[in-house]
Amino acid sequence: MKVLTRLLLAAGLGLSIAAPAAAQDAGTKRWKQGTGWGWVWGPEDQVGALNEMTDASRAAALRLATQGRAYDLGLPYDRNSYRWPGHSPGEIISFRTPEGVARQRDLPFTTPEGGNTGHTRWHSSVLFMSDNVATQIDGLAHITHGADNHWYNGFKEEQWGGNFGVRAMDVTTIPPIVARGVMIDVAGQKGVEALPKGYEITVADLEAALRAQNVDVTPGTVALIRTGTARYWGANGSDHARIADPDTSGIGMAAARWLVEQKGALMIGSDTSGLEYVPPKPEDSQAVGGSFNPVHVYLLVNQGVHIGEFHNLERLAADRVYEFAYVATTNAIRGTVAGTALRPMALR
Amino acid sequence: MKVLTRLLLAAGLGLSIAAPAAAQDAGTKRWKQGTGWGWVWGPEDQVGALNEMTDASRAAALRLATQGRAYDLGLPYDRNSYRWPGHSPGEIISFRTPEGVARQRDLPFTTPEGGNTGHTRWHSSVLFMSDNVATQIDGLAHITHGADNHWYNGFKEEQWGGNFGVRAMDVTTIPPIVARGVMIDVAGQKGVEALPKGYEITVADLEAALRAQNVDVTPGTVALIRTGTARYWGANGSDHARIADPDTSGIGMAAARWLVEQKGALMIGSDTSGLEYVPPKPEDSQAVGGSFNPVHVYLLVNQGVHIGEFHNLERLAADRVYEFAYVATTNAIRGTVAGTALRPMALR
Amino acid sequence: MKVLTRLLLAAGLGLSIAAPAAAQDAGTKRWKQGTGWGWVWGPEDQVGALNEMTDASRAAALRLATQGRAYDLGLPYDRNSYRWPGHSPGEIISFRTPEGVARQRDLPFTTPEGGNTGHTRWHSSVLFMSDNVATQIDGLAHITHGADNHWYNGFKEEQWGGNFGVRAMDVTTIPPIVARGVMIDVAGQKGVEALPKGYEITVADLEAALRAQNVDVTPGTVALIRTGTARYWGANGSDHARIADPDTSGIGMAAARWLVEQKGALMIGSDTSGLEYVPPKPEDSQAVGGSFNPVHVYLLVNQGVHIGEFHNLERLAADRVYEFAYVATTNAIRGTVAGTALRPMALR
Amino acid sequence: MKVLTRLLLAAGLGLSIAAPAAAQDAGTKRWKQGTGWGWVWGPEDQVGALNEMTDASRAAALRLATQGRAYDLGLPYDRNSYRWPGHSPGEIISFRTPEGVARQRDLPFTTPEGGNTGHTRWHSSVLFMSDNVATQIDGLAHITHGADNHWYNGFKEEQWGGNFGVRAMDVTTIPPIVARGVMIDVAGQKGVEALPKGYEITVADLEAALRAQNVDVTPGTVALIRTGTARYWGANGSDHARIADPDTSGIGMAAARWLVEQKGALMIGSDTSGLEYVPPKPEDSQAVGGSFNPVHVYLLVNQGVHIGEFHNLERLAADRVYEFAYVATTNAIRGTVAGTALRPMALR
Repeated sequence: MKVLTRLLLAAGLGLSIAAPAAAQDAGTKRWKQGTGWGWVWGPEDQVGALNEMTDASRAAALRLATQGRAYDLGLPYDRNSYRWPGHSPGEIISFRTPEGVARQRDLPFTTPEGGNTGHTRWHSSVLFMSDNVATQIDGLAHITHGADNHWYNGFKEEQWGGNFGVRAMDVTTIPPIVARGVMIDVAGQKGVEALPKGYEITVADLEAALRAQNVDVTPGTVALIRTGTARYWGANGSDHARIADPDTSGIGMAAARWLVEQKGALMIGSDTSGLEYVPPKPEDSQAVGGSFNPVHVYLLVNQGVHIGEFHNLERLAADRVYEFAYVATTNAIRGTVAGTALRPMALR
Repeated sequence: MKVLTRLLLAAGLGLSIAAPAAAQDAGTKRWKQGTGWGWVWGPEDQVGALNEMTDASRAAALRLATQGRAYDLGLPYDRNSYRWPGHSPGEIISFRTPEGVARQRDLPFTTPEGGNTGHTRWHSSVLFMSDNVATQIDGLAHITHGADNHWYNGFKEEQWGGNFGVRAMDVTTIPPIVARGVMIDVAGQKGVEALPKGYEITVADLEAALRAQNVDVTPGTVALIRTGTARYWGANGSDHARIADPDTSGIGMAAARWLVEQKGALMIGSDTSGLEYVPPKPEDSQAVGGSFNPVHVYLLVNQGVHIGEFHNLERLAADRVYEFAYVATTNAIRGTVAGTALRPMALR
Repeated sequence: MKVLTRLLLAAGLGLSIAAPAAAQDAGTKRWKQGTGWGWVWGPEDQVGALNEMTDASRAAALRLATQGRAYDLGLPYDRNSYRWPGHSPGEIISFRTPEGVARQRDLPFTTPEGGNTGHTRWHSSVLFMSDNVATQIDGLAHITHGADNHWYNGFKEEQWGGNFGVRAMDVTTIPPIVARGVMIDVAGQKGVEALPKGYEITVADLEAALRAQNVDVTPGTVALIRTGTARYWGANGSDHARIADPDTSGIGMAAARWLVEQKGALMIGSDTSGLEYVPPKPEDSQAVGGSFNPVHVYLLVNQGVHIGEFHNLERLAADRVYEFAYVATTNAIRGTVAGTALRPMALR
Repeated sequence: MKVLTRLLLAAGLGLSIAAPAAAQDAGTKRWKQGTGWGWVWGPEDQVGALNEMTDASRAAALRLATQGRAYDLGLPYDRNSYRWPGHSPGEIISFRTPEGVARQRDLPFTTPEGGNTGHTRWHSSVLFMSDNVATQIDGLAHITHGADNHWYNGFKEEQWGGNFGVRAMDVTTIPPIVARGVMIDVAGQKGVEALPKGYEITVADLEAALRAQNVDVTPGTVALIRTGTARYWGANGSDHARIADPDTSGIGMAAARWLVEQKGALMIGSDTSGLEYVPPKPEDSQAVGGSFNPVHVYLLVNQGVHIGEFHNLERLAADRVYEFAYVATTNAIRGTVAGTALRPMALR
């Protein structure tokens, strides 16, 4: 059966088309305090910690949304938006335009002679963009580690790589996320606009903020950590100079491990491009054998915990909303490794 | 004040970064039985009927999700997916790969000498794709009409067009959608796999299905109409031959008007690429002065009602789920005219 | 007949497929000292001054290439290359790779079972790039002028614009260029590495250099003017800081008019991104009614003289080669307005 | 010295910027009747048989162009052009347009207030396209062979692959080509419009055509073989149905070996997408251990002989021009493996 699934995946056949959330009923509570999640869902698994969601957990999360308020956590993207320098630039280009359709006359039904006497025309755009810009959820195939280029659950590049994106564990394997969300306002607790360049958020920082907010991270919670960076995003993230410094603040290995292993965080996000502080201190880098992104390796590769990036937490902070239903789906684009330019919601 | 807003938009400054749903508290109940919605929200409005959502309406919708089941309504997209022929082809391309990062050595921190002794590397993709593929929500700037190329609320191309997509009413103006959803299973009521080529769904068809399902479309409901087309999508919509025929079935002007003017539908969607049957009969075409897409003109341009396309309704049909909370956000990509490759949810 | 031609062009049918150089025998010597070229080739003309080329002129040019030396005037382009800020960024992306072909298995003939036991595979790339980068020849549709957005010979946007590039006067209308070339080494004559920021090359500068080189620009000559900027291009034009300043030096209206109206230059090029010095002085800007690029307007729109940009003249200067056969063809890409990333040749 | 060169290449530094044709004076006559070319130019070589060009050979070739006639051998490309199915689709998209520049106001110097009272604006396009479309010259990195994915001269993927195209032997290493050209009109000799589907051109076919034309292929000649396919290209190669069949005709291993090993062809081209007949007969496939493209492997990988594709030979045939100077340069785009959408010339 497992072999069959793998073969189907190898053939690009994917899962059945009409499946509800893959992990609909799969919640088998495999999290263990002290070790967290990990490669515990079987050798075929491509979902990771999100397997923990159940109908019951989703229903409980949605019960937090009593007021019907919907917070849009997305940051708008355009050609000028700040991005991590390893990603490609992007262009959103007018592809068909009313005037162009009229002049081009390439489709007969668009002409008056073809019956279009009312001059119906349209706009469409072409996107040339990275799957890693603006508000993202990193999939488990995003990061590889080791000389064998393995990713979560031991999937290896030599078997699962490809030319049209990854051939396993792409974003279409990320189930719709409906879970209890907690926003941890570290910048707010410290009374600063935004955290300074390269600042490592400690376990004590998280504990202090949670205490001040009077909420806790419980197993199965999506934890969103506020550095304040998103306040500089503006309409499109074009003020790179102001974004750059706070964008390098974030959690380190200690806080990541505490959130996963002690608290059972289902997913961890923040308002920066990479969640973790950079560059990492030597002990953090060495914790995974030498890495520029040890928290990514720890969460995505070793624990199977998805990462949320560039989530807009400003209005939640302004309204002092710390607990909510976190609801997010990625794009359904095969091969891609992160949901990109998303708009997750906090429902309250 | 309105002038200022328009100037800000013209300058690309957009709305404040941390705004929750634009229409959070705007519900002013402007729908009127007999005429529907329309250009009733003031000359600056870019939101249309979705202005009707309120905290109360969202809270009521969410109360439908008692079981915590999450249905993913997205259809996965890749380079082979069926699309309307007027749109561009697409490619999802591996941009950075573990082996490529290792060989290219263009970023010092990725090299062993640069500290990356654990061989952390990554996948990222570049998307070249249309903003009108797979599961979509058409924004109000998608369709223009008349020799003056106006779109909803009288916005005109000569003022609001641009090279980087539209400069007003792009998808970032679509608020997060949380509303009561009703699925109308026309194919199911007729006992067919999928509706035949070019079939016009009538008001009687809708009424019969709703009666059989024992639900109704009430003002503020997102109505999703099932033709059965999505059952042929498979893993990626590559079976163009089977999709093409049922994809041309859908509602006509009569059903569209009934849904909006008599029932108060907040948004209308289906499981096809274009919602409406094509090609339109002469009376439907002439209803808007001669058009290949009269229902689009009626809904998007004249009524300000967003359109949902290629929504996967198969599992809802299988489970006989007809009423639910419809929850969807588009990508946050400035200039684009449709949310694309989305995964809306039906929460039950 | 002319009407037919225009209709054919409007229908995108273009010229006959096997035509040799469009201007093969058209040389009708319409240049006049004192006024230059202009809109003198009939209302259908899309070729401009290059119509002047004849078999005789090409044969004469080729007789300059007695030694058989071929100078490559192209500057290599990649994702890091300097470009004018109004143009899009670019990416050259590995599309198919040997490892990717092997893993993807999307084409049966590439598999061992499909007969490919010798493991033949391939590389191909996808280009996402501007038609205005690196070594270019600007087509006559590149620049428009006036509130009516007309280009050379009175072609107007409202008639000839389109969504897939311009619908007339694209680069496929540029005939193969084989003409006498003269390199005017202004930087060399002045004894500088490169001209300073914003420097306007005067008629006196050109005369002094030509005198020192003992050559002249005669009617029908391609004139290439050296500022020295290309010496900073290196492998890929990535040293933007060094390129930026000399790149703004170039000819102004006086030198452009002298070259065209007094000397009969067939085409004018240089080693910078825009040929002309920028920003223009008020008198130059006002010479065409107020423009940021008056020399472009004068040459492309008013005179029908093509412009060569970012031509690498360094080796010609090192070898003191001032007269040669200039041989260049653009890409054959319909809709594009400039030959891009070209490698023209100087044959000596 | 060789090590240094390789290191420079590895660092992406490429060759000196002002170099004339790399092989300017390198002609060392390493071709041997009976074995052809091969890996004979030293372990660093990326140029192959084109090393054979010298000043003397170029001068001799140019002396064939006595009449000054220039034949454009390029076939125009657009979004609808026929292409080999393994390559990506393409779009040429209007990026900046006069109306868009005016409306967008994103660059101050384009506004009337910024001085642009004359309304100078521009067109530019964005290309999204394969490096393997329309008229091409395949570089030596295009095809790999063997389980080690090696290409010409033993360069291997694991060392020279990359994310931004190949890191060695890209098209920028192809020197400007100026050589004696011979067109072998096989379709003409047979008296057919075009060769039939899958037809293998034999040595006897070539000999018969050459005899009828009274010319020969001599060492250092670019041989262009006419199947007649280009007569169906029309304006843009959109008639896929008519192109598809003759496009599969071409030379096999026997003719390829005869041209290289007996005749000393410097480069071999034709008017089809792939030069060789397909699918190959078993003996041809097995000649290189099992391959879908054995002639490509033989020429590009084993012999270092570049391949010309989709060359328009129709007008040469009409004018019975069989001997000429072949002059071609590829684009100068780093990483790409084929000159694409080119316009080589036959000068007579």
